[in-house]
Amino acid sequence: MAASPLRFPRVALVGRLESPGIAEPLAHLAAFLAGRGHAVVLGAETATHHPLPGYRSAPAAEMDRHADLVIVIGGDGTMLSIARQVAPFDLPLVGINQGRLGFLTDIPLAAMETTLAAMLDGRFVEERRTLLDTQVNGDRAVALNDVVVNRGSGGSMIEVRVEINGRFVYAMRADGLIVATPTGSTAYALSAGGPIIAPDVPAFALVPVAPHALTHRPVAVHESAVIAVTVQRGSDASVHCDGQTRFPLDEGQTVTIRRAASAARFLHPEGHDYFGMLRSKLHWSAIPERLPDRRD
Amino acid sequence: MAASPLRFPRVALVGRLESPGIAEPLAHLAAFLAGRGHAVVLGAETATHHPLPGYRSAPAAEMDRHADLVIVIGGDGTMLSIARQVAPFDLPLVGINQGRLGFLTDIPLAAMETTLAAMLDGRFVEERRTLLDTQVNGDRAVALNDVVVNRGSGGSMIEVRVEINGRFVYAMRADGLIVATPTGSTAYALSAGGPIIAPDVPAFALVPVAPHALTHRPVAVHESAVIAVTVQRGSDASVHCDGQTRFPLDEGQTVTIRRAASAARFLHPEGHDYFGMLRSKLHWSAIPERLPDRRD
Amino acid sequence: MAASPLRFPRVALVGRLESPGIAEPLAHLAAFLAGRGHAVVLGAETATHHPLPGYRSAPAAEMDRHADLVIVIGGDGTMLSIARQVAPFDLPLVGINQGRLGFLTDIPLAAMETTLAAMLDGRFVEERRTLLDTQVNGDRAVALNDVVVNRGSGGSMIEVRVEINGRFVYAMRADGLIVATPTGSTAYALSAGGPIIAPDVPAFALVPVAPHALTHRPVAVHESAVIAVTVQRGSDASVHCDGQTRFPLDEGQTVTIRRAASAARFLHPEGHDYFGMLRSKLHWSAIPERLPDRRD
Amino acid sequence: MAASPLRFPRVALVGRLESPGIAEPLAHLAAFLAGRGHAVVLGAETATHHPLPGYRSAPAAEMDRHADLVIVIGGDGTMLSIARQVAPFDLPLVGINQGRLGFLTDIPLAAMETTLAAMLDGRFVEERRTLLDTQVNGDRAVALNDVVVNRGSGGSMIEVRVEINGRFVYAMRADGLIVATPTGSTAYALSAGGPIIAPDVPAFALVPVAPHALTHRPVAVHESAVIAVTVQRGSDASVHCDGQTRFPLDEGQTVTIRRAASAARFLHPEGHDYFGMLRSKLHWSAIPERLPDRRD
Repeated sequence: MAASPLRFPRVALVGRLESPGIAEPLAHLAAFLAGRGHAVVLGAETATHHPLPGYRSAPAAEMDRHADLVIVIGGDGTMLSIARQVAPFDLPLVGINQGRLGFLTDIPLAAMETTLAAMLDGRFVEERRTLLDTQVNGDRAVALNDVVVNRGSGGSMIEVRVEINGRFVYAMRADGLIVATPTGSTAYALSAGGPIIAPDVPAFALVPVAPHALTHRPVAVHESAVIAVTVQRGSDASVHCDGQTRFPLDEGQTVTIRRAASAARFLHPEGHDYFGMLRSKLHWSAIPERLPDRRD
Repeated sequence: MAASPLRFPRVALVGRLESPGIAEPLAHLAAFLAGRGHAVVLGAETATHHPLPGYRSAPAAEMDRHADLVIVIGGDGTMLSIARQVAPFDLPLVGINQGRLGFLTDIPLAAMETTLAAMLDGRFVEERRTLLDTQVNGDRAVALNDVVVNRGSGGSMIEVRVEINGRFVYAMRADGLIVATPTGSTAYALSAGGPIIAPDVPAFALVPVAPHALTHRPVAVHESAVIAVTVQRGSDASVHCDGQTRFPLDEGQTVTIRRAASAARFLHPEGHDYFGMLRSKLHWSAIPERLPDRRD
Repeated sequence: MAASPLRFPRVALVGRLESPGIAEPLAHLAAFLAGRGHAVVLGAETATHHPLPGYRSAPAAEMDRHADLVIVIGGDGTMLSIARQVAPFDLPLVGINQGRLGFLTDIPLAAMETTLAAMLDGRFVEERRTLLDTQVNGDRAVALNDVVVNRGSGGSMIEVRVEINGRFVYAMRADGLIVATPTGSTAYALSAGGPIIAPDVPAFALVPVAPHALTHRPVAVHESAVIAVTVQRGSDASVHCDGQTRFPLDEGQTVTIRRAASAARFLHPEGHDYFGMLRSKLHWSAIPERLPDRRD
Repeated sequence: MAASPLRFPRVALVGRLESPGIAEPLAHLAAFLAGRGHAVVLGAETATHHPLPGYRSAPAAEMDRHADLVIVIGGDGTMLSIARQVAPFDLPLVGINQGRLGFLTDIPLAAMETTLAAMLDGRFVEERRTLLDTQVNGDRAVALNDVVVNRGSGGSMIEVRVEINGRFVYAMRADGLIVATPTGSTAYALSAGGPIIAPDVPAFALVPVAPHALTHRPVAVHESAVIAVTVQRGSDASVHCDGQTRFPLDEGQTVTIRRAASAARFLHPEGHDYFGMLRSKLHWSAIPERLPDRRD
């Protein structure tokens, strides 16, 4: 009797570049996949840092021609990076974490084979995460977490002017302004006092960092909003996408931020629980400690 | 040549009950509307507090049979109250404010006639605002701003357990938990550190009040969420809807909160600007003050 | 050769009343102390809840006539209660915790004997903690953590007017206003967004709970300040001292809060480390987690 | 009859350098003082930017040899700058503001002559404000507001390790860490969520900017504390004093912050009211707005 065709015949592997210890689990995973009949291809950068004889490699920018699924071994930073690169290709992503589980990399290395076996057989839940498209001075970049307009290292606040859909929203003096996706709402934006936005809420959060005026507050706007941020005053300002891509921003220049045409597709094991993940990452107690209370 | 038919043939008037000074503008408005050919009806409570000879009255609970439009003169509190009462009827609401403009009552008394004339002729923008449906121990109430699970006056925190769509989210010890609509996100929830949620974002905010654990943060969830809040520990706890309806909540009891079947329909003058209103209400500067800076 | 005289000849024992499990360690501790030659006396309430044959008991209000040192077994709540009762007597206090260590009860039950032996021999550090004296309508109470002016259970904010040393500071609409000692700065005030105040800073923190105006912020004032809080508007308001004593507060009534004449004296084992305790209680990491970062 | 001797025979004038419009009030003030018999000297930089024939000038670094009082016309930034320069000389400072009143420059230009006449006759209140002394890699600087350890423009958080009096307090990942005086507590630290600290509280506030861990909170420590902040990780980090002096800070380097030997002496008109100034600057209402409430 013939085996049923594979759901993901070609699988790409991407590993955290700076982790020498990842070479071994990477090799292990490649062998596991090959053994199941998948065609395995390494990300080009991964192959350079962690050479694996016997496997082909392909650059992220051409991954759509070589893979039906991308598996990442590393932390959320590695996932952010590859997700942005393959965003246009609508390729599903799976994240395996060698350390403490991440927001995006939620499969522990120790349970890798069992979990992946089930997922490759189709027992997964898919989650689409919105990306931000950023345009500034003819340049363009994509962000999965956030786009941040930042003051420079000189220490002075910047003044920004924000418009949404062509309408003036506010001018503000601050260290910076974060525009975050729901994915990014648990990242830098949370440190700056922003709300957590569940992944199925079609919104972006505008979160000021240390705003001069005490009445500024984080605002959630619909993801269809076109957000224009103009630096009105501030030397050495810049825009960051996911803290990984950076563009300088002079006084008078505007960065335009909107939902990207494509979304990131994350596959999770069945039973994936967003709030369970939050509880674990943010140390929310299932049962509040009874003793000692800070109040009574 | 015959006049074109009226867009809103029957108009109901509702006024802030506790304001004696409102009798005069109310009479003025009634005459203005009658003069334009509208059939004017007073809200029953309004008619009791501010009797206006020559006009019929009708209780809010039957307003759908008597009016095509409801005009409120008062503050946001008056609007909240009537909006909740007529919510099932899909009646459009217009708000006139005798004092400083409100979030919901955005037409100044001084410009009442000119503004209303244009709106009654069809020059308005319509905005739908989600309502919350609250069920607790067989009782049911609707809220336009927020549903708040509150500690009692004894001063001890309560412990609540939150489930969304049947899934455990967190247990928390706090003064209270606010579930706010976008409309309510600029009300009590903002005082408690919640985000502003633009009216077109289909989300509710869960905002803890003075949570014991320092890692709790406001969370925005999709408006399709069914939110169940159980009091696990706490004497004299209660649920408030818009701060106007109150139910006691014993240990072990659960309040279930979800989007109401109907929404509130607000009509605004053309050119209505949500963020302009926010700027004005929250004193956001259009141009940050240059001198004196708190920093340099 | 004669033994040297005991530093604390008479030791009082106080135990958490609601914990049946405390009877055994209490008996154990009494025997340990008697064996060292100390005269042991039980707090009267403790003796009622956890009778211990062969030991005398004395009410807290007369503890100065019976003890040179008070040892508490329980949580911070038990310590708060006894510290307020013996405050006028300048009696040193030692706290043993049966569960997770508290801010005030910092000796683990398991290490009780060894730790106490050293302390009773004089190897301890002493810390004086300021208390608040509260006067309202002829009544008077003492607080070690905080005095809270609170809204009632009706759900409406209260309006309070604050004067310091007879000078108007602000009027505010809020859920409540907390006046906290450095000790209380890690209790309820911290939940409401107040700062941590190290015990050697002679200051009280005024921390609003969910203030209506967005520009209100916690303020630290000198501990010599006389703080008068008047309820200008609000039904069912009240004042709480340490969440344990409660007085009703009508509109127009004023509560006056100042440093109490006496302070609480806590003895800690040598090497006591305030910030180490904070790190442990607030889960501050000694080394920030490297993986996964929420940002990169 | 002989005139009584002048309390401040020699008065130095310092003006905001970048404001051409200040030349005229500066000339006016100089003539007013000369007419009262004071010897007037211009700050050297002021004399360069706003030449005033007939008056001598002296550099700030030698101001103690030429003046008994320094009057500043400008904003708080100008005052910060001169206060740091003359800090070692124990010279009293008076601030006149040409625009909206500042925290430090509290005499309006329009009332300049009347107010100064009274103050020069001895009708003033004096306030001493603590300064911070900063040492880093052999360099040294003084700050009146704050010392800030900052991330660089690259956008990555820094990791800092804080010790107080040689004892480890915490390690933290953040955008930066602010150490603020009471004076600086209403400046940048307030934007970052720090408390207001009244000027008579002998404390410094440690305020993290966008800390990664959600449990970090501002901490007030006694002003006798010696605070050592070590950059454990972070490229392009730096230290800023009052946002005006900047030193680079490499990984592994430590900045040591303590109370400076000298304090700033500010003279205010009689009736000066710290909280009145706060109310005005922070827009605290004397009477909370009754309508419309955000809650009811």
